[in-house]
Amino acid sequence: MSEDELIAAIATIADGAAKRVFVGIGDDAAVWQPSRSHRSVITTDALIEDVHFSRRTMSAREIGWRAMAANLSDLAAMGARPVLATVAFGIPTGDTELALECYRGIAECARYGKIDVAGGDLTSAPVLVLSITAIGEVRASDCKLRSGARPGDALAVTGALGASRAGLLHAQGVIELDAVAAREALAMHRRPHARVAEGRWLAKSANVHAMMDCSDGLSTDLTRMCAASASGARIESVPIARSARAAADLLSESPERFALAGGEDFELLIAVAPRAFAHLAVRFSAHFGRTLHRVGTVLAERRIVTMNEDGSETPVEATGWDHFRRV
Amino acid sequence: MSEDELIAAIATIADGAAKRVFVGIGDDAAVWQPSRSHRSVITTDALIEDVHFSRRTMSAREIGWRAMAANLSDLAAMGARPVLATVAFGIPTGDTELALECYRGIAECARYGKIDVAGGDLTSAPVLVLSITAIGEVRASDCKLRSGARPGDALAVTGALGASRAGLLHAQGVIELDAVAAREALAMHRRPHARVAEGRWLAKSANVHAMMDCSDGLSTDLTRMCAASASGARIESVPIARSARAAADLLSESPERFALAGGEDFELLIAVAPRAFAHLAVRFSAHFGRTLHRVGTVLAERRIVTMNEDGSETPVEATGWDHFRRV
Repeated sequence: MSEDELIAAIATIADGAAKRVFVGIGDDAAVWQPSRSHRSVITTDALIEDVHFSRRTMSAREIGWRAMAANLSDLAAMGARPVLATVAFGIPTGDTELALECYRGIAECARYGKIDVAGGDLTSAPVLVLSITAIGEVRASDCKLRSGARPGDALAVTGALGASRAGLLHAQGVIELDAVAAREALAMHRRPHARVAEGRWLAKSANVHAMMDCSDGLSTDLTRMCAASASGARIESVPIARSARAAADLLSESPERFALAGGEDFELLIAVAPRAFAHLAVRFSAHFGRTLHRVGTVLAERRIVTMNEDGSETPVEATGWDHFRRV
Repeated sequence: MSEDELIAAIATIADGAAKRVFVGIGDDAAVWQPSRSHRSVITTDALIEDVHFSRRTMSAREIGWRAMAANLSDLAAMGARPVLATVAFGIPTGDTELALECYRGIAECARYGKIDVAGGDLTSAPVLVLSITAIGEVRASDCKLRSGARPGDALAVTGALGASRAGLLHAQGVIELDAVAAREALAMHRRPHARVAEGRWLAKSANVHAMMDCSDGLSTDLTRMCAASASGARIESVPIARSARAAADLLSESPERFALAGGEDFELLIAVAPRAFAHLAVRFSAHFGRTLHRVGTVLAERRIVTMNEDGSETPVEATGWDHFRRV
């Protein structure tokens, strides 16, 4: 299959998605009309084979899904509505079926996230390289940054943590989860869902002061939110996914520590005005059928600690995902 | 240097550029206010070490410059004004100086092209990977596609062709150009200039029916324009860079053929209403001090040919850059 034939095949897979795009795959660039009342938001994620994923533990379609989900999660973290994405592909020479399978996963996740795939680039590479850029839109007043957390704010996450890491370890054969835990963990690892609707909903609340996604693990991401907000945090309670608890047991690790270090969960982390939290959590639960888990409190002092049962504190290290680490 | 330290160092290099960006490097995504009267344009290019470039023939700073120039060229080809770009980096483990040097080249070209670098992604990779996405803006009426060429249109390019290919062959040691030719060829190969101002100027003319850049060689790119426009073309005259002529001589190749196959020249190819061409070329030359070279004519029949001196025709093959070929 030639390069131009492969581009044509990819355009067919993407077809039906591109509603807001005037000029899509095949020209020098894609063209769209941004909303006049909104700001535009852009995010980029590059995934490299054997750094971010391995084809031994994930199918090409799952790799594509996850790459798109990571970008949608970054848009969700800004409170933005997804608009369109471009995909730059590096594929091992000649393996066009790999590119097409990967692209099917991208297109599936894009349909789920209501984002148009508008074009991209295609080249050969020594390993599979997938660089997705996603554009979203958000009202200026809704846009939530990492830097808005205030001392006293309640910290909360949109879901239990650690399942994706448990799924990775299971897929790698490091641990062997039971069937039920394995199903949860592998689904979270291979087909994660970005919290796009949740992000947009939370962004509309003026009581939500800061928001980001937990893609690198709560310990690392909370450290970043605190750095951006010139604050600290006390972690009081970590919602642990069932499969993460099972994985931690198999590894004789603390489940809290396992969940804190687990990246790629794609849950959102927010800082909320403390008096507004309870009501927000009730409304969130009624709207999404999910729990908004309170995990801690923003501190004025620049330290990040977990609170022990006896009330003492233990410093937290950023033990989550490091992009220079290899899988 | 840790990942967060490297991001901070990169943000320092990018600083001063980001005028139109509300939220830049360091948050989940970058945020900007698109112009209300324009459409937005997006393009992505991925460059992979030993596929698109070699560190044996280009410095890291030149690699960065050229990657940004390729994206600016795609915006130029739409007639768009550059707005902002994101950069996804894969770097061989630990080589942060490589990333910073590369980033300096990106920032230099970005300043030249008046585009803000708004963020990106950073990861380790087995080889240097550079995926840039650029956003531009264009009035709906100015946006030029590949598909607008009409039978009888004059085809023209904004500059002589083949110098970048000559520079590559010289840098690889395949040929040895004399000092003057080498200087021209290496400059075009390592520090190409995207025709951003020319693209915006040409786009404002209603007589320019189609536009694209010659990044993959005129023979390949003209084939694409003709395919998009359901037309053919006759190439009557190819403007050949002096260094390209010297390179073809050394290789005992036809200079026309050498120039037709030479990718990465980043000149613009346009299809213009035939009666408007002469006046447009005079105004172009007065404005830019460069020649708008007439290269041929759009044909109704779907064949692409060169015209020989005796008036006979020779079919043209798309001999230019193939993204699955390795350097």
